[in-house]
Amino acid sequence: MRARRTPDDETDEPRSTGLRPSRRAALVGGGGLLAGVGLAGGFAAGRAVADDSTGDDPTVFDLHGTHQPGIVTPVQDRLHFAAFDVTTESRDELVEMLREWTKAADRLMHGDSAGPIGPTSGDYRTPPDDTGEAIGLPPSRLTLTFGFGPGLFTDADGVDRFGLADRRPALLEPLPHFPEDALDPERSNGDLCIQACADDPQVAVHAIRNLARIGFGTVRMRWSQLGFGKTSSTTTGEETPRNLFGFKDGTMNITADEDAELDEHVWVGPDDDPDAGWLVGGSYLAVRRINMRIETWDRQPLGAQEEFIGRTKGGGAPLSGGTEHSQPDFDMKGSTGPVMPEDSHVRLVHPSHNGGSRILRRGYNFVDGSTALGDLDAGLFFLAYVRDPDRQFIPMQNAMAKNDAMMEYLKFTGSALFAVPPGTRKGEYIGQALFT
Amino acid sequence: MRARRTPDDETDEPRSTGLRPSRRAALVGGGGLLAGVGLAGGFAAGRAVADDSTGDDPTVFDLHGTHQPGIVTPVQDRLHFAAFDVTTESRDELVEMLREWTKAADRLMHGDSAGPIGPTSGDYRTPPDDTGEAIGLPPSRLTLTFGFGPGLFTDADGVDRFGLADRRPALLEPLPHFPEDALDPERSNGDLCIQACADDPQVAVHAIRNLARIGFGTVRMRWSQLGFGKTSSTTTGEETPRNLFGFKDGTMNITADEDAELDEHVWVGPDDDPDAGWLVGGSYLAVRRINMRIETWDRQPLGAQEEFIGRTKGGGAPLSGGTEHSQPDFDMKGSTGPVMPEDSHVRLVHPSHNGGSRILRRGYNFVDGSTALGDLDAGLFFLAYVRDPDRQFIPMQNAMAKNDAMMEYLKFTGSALFAVPPGTRKGEYIGQALFT
Repeated sequence: MRARRTPDDETDEPRSTGLRPSRRAALVGGGGLLAGVGLAGGFAAGRAVADDSTGDDPTVFDLHGTHQPGIVTPVQDRLHFAAFDVTTESRDELVEMLREWTKAADRLMHGDSAGPIGPTSGDYRTPPDDTGEAIGLPPSRLTLTFGFGPGLFTDADGVDRFGLADRRPALLEPLPHFPEDALDPERSNGDLCIQACADDPQVAVHAIRNLARIGFGTVRMRWSQLGFGKTSSTTTGEETPRNLFGFKDGTMNITADEDAELDEHVWVGPDDDPDAGWLVGGSYLAVRRINMRIETWDRQPLGAQEEFIGRTKGGGAPLSGGTEHSQPDFDMKGSTGPVMPEDSHVRLVHPSHNGGSRILRRGYNFVDGSTALGDLDAGLFFLAYVRDPDRQFIPMQNAMAKNDAMMEYLKFTGSALFAVPPGTRKGEYIGQALFT
Repeated sequence: MRARRTPDDETDEPRSTGLRPSRRAALVGGGGLLAGVGLAGGFAAGRAVADDSTGDDPTVFDLHGTHQPGIVTPVQDRLHFAAFDVTTESRDELVEMLREWTKAADRLMHGDSAGPIGPTSGDYRTPPDDTGEAIGLPPSRLTLTFGFGPGLFTDADGVDRFGLADRRPALLEPLPHFPEDALDPERSNGDLCIQACADDPQVAVHAIRNLARIGFGTVRMRWSQLGFGKTSSTTTGEETPRNLFGFKDGTMNITADEDAELDEHVWVGPDDDPDAGWLVGGSYLAVRRINMRIETWDRQPLGAQEEFIGRTKGGGAPLSGGTEHSQPDFDMKGSTGPVMPEDSHVRLVHPSHNGGSRILRRGYNFVDGSTALGDLDAGLFFLAYVRDPDRQFIPMQNAMAKNDAMMEYLKFTGSALFAVPPGTRKGEYIGQALFT
């Protein structure tokens, strides 16, 4: 069992005993001695630590395994997603940061501080190795999932900065420009990404912040996005969550117990790409920031909303009848045409119209304030894990963009594709197989 | 007991039975008949409704009372705050919207839909009167708190649009420009505000969205802000939450059980302002969006961080010793000066240095993505309720701005002041005393 640190000081002695540097001295890094009085303890009382990383605490997931956590893991309530550009030219520095990220990610997922000293112990004259806002918060089912963007292999000028170009997966190309894309470059792409999901947003934010801090000088945050409500579930039998159109979303999602489907549609297989053996057991993550014109949507009649989607708004059943999980009957005719309209969202993205492809969705609702026009800057931050973006994601996105009646109410403002390495084995660092 | 609506359709008949308008017909508002099949029911199963508005459900608060909810109410985890400009010139339309808001707020706080029809029943040819994303979610301790800005009484051109100028509270002036203010006008001020607090952000967002929708044509959203983590508690004995500097925040907060302190420092009294008798039992809400330079902060030594604040980072005790709730000893001398530094935050905002004033804080942590420089756009969305902003808030803010060592790490990007009317009596609308 890991040693649980002693709780924080409950009663502090006065601090200015001559042992303590003045702030000025502390700021210039000089003078003063270590003041240990009352500062035993590190991360906080209340921040639980599991006995081990494969323990029984249902709020702790394991960083290590065949696949990364945060993909099939039961979808947590909140998201902080961050994309980074690598600023160093040194492969060694990049690898060293991945080693540090691995250690920190393992600690953070256990509800521990980002570094071994923690937010409140250690030398007064140095910054703590954790920022402190998660003191007292439980692990909150935090998962951290790491991905590599095209720029890690070949930068915008075609330079192979890290000697990785010949290991670039053939499918890891920046996503094409789709119809209705109005992308903000400051919300798109990135050399690396981290998806932090947790039931407490403060825990997710704390993780991203501390990983960004560890990466300072090696990476720079390019963009980041908070999501407040999950829009997909990977858990069989769980109530399907709703997006900001008010509809159940991700009814057809692949669930964690569908092993064969996961192998077919999510995990990169051993024969998929001879140049990217390091990616076997990993996946591709397609990211789309989808603004919804919700004020306009809200003025559409209920019948129109349902026909845009192809499902009822209440129960989520296909318009052809049944219950939420009934298969739509695309051939059923009504008095004015197909009951499932030709341009309905469900029809266009259904596996039967996409060569049998399914995807694993982990999207989140977002609201980032409001626009100058007085509309909410709101929508769906779409995250989908697929084995083959060229076959599973790009055709579906094109079909949607060209034909989907719902497109009138969408604006795509961010876009990215990442290769998500397989799980990390104990003693290894994240993505190690790429570098060895 | 209120009638609980029947749950949503679990099994739907096929919809296209000739009763249903085509989408085209629906969009132009013509053709087709009502299709009632399988559409009994309104708001969702799982969306609980209390027996009555003063019932025993701990997740339902009452809109009605002496004071508005959301002030002393135990602070919920999440926030959506919105400010609106009034676009109508008609006092009648403004009053009518307040009536509608009152009805909707009462429903929403009970976990019900925004309107009586709900998101999924009613005429297919008309938009639902609720947007639907909260179907199935519990009331989540939602509170809705309404405020009136200076512009409601006299607009920017000095025009008295609604015949309210002579009832404007003398203290309801736009906040002055403080040192270190770098205000974004699109994040400042507003004629009206709504503070939505709930334990589920989707419930808070749903409330603001539906109230904005009801107000369409009468008000336009000017700005809005999500907060993901509370930074203050109004509940005695509750763990003090932490801000993004990693410190406990609001240790000195007024709590809900301090009736005398609330009367002295929060609620407007009967003799406070002869022109604003309508505000008796209400309060003033000072709003400040405070960006934190957290990446720079994180590089400061622990000792420096603690001296900026005047408290320990772990337990939150004053540097003069004791426990979190011990009174600081501002006279205690150390070897290099006062143990509680002259420019420490706690010293500058302490009641003993502010004429005995206390404030009631309900602030939230926010992260709105990241900046072009790669820093998190993050900080504290400060909300404080005071009886007298001129005496309680402005001097404290000036003392902070001029002398507080912490100011180096802060940038004020939004600012507003609202008069918050007293509680609404049953049968009245929010703020009714102002209009009658």
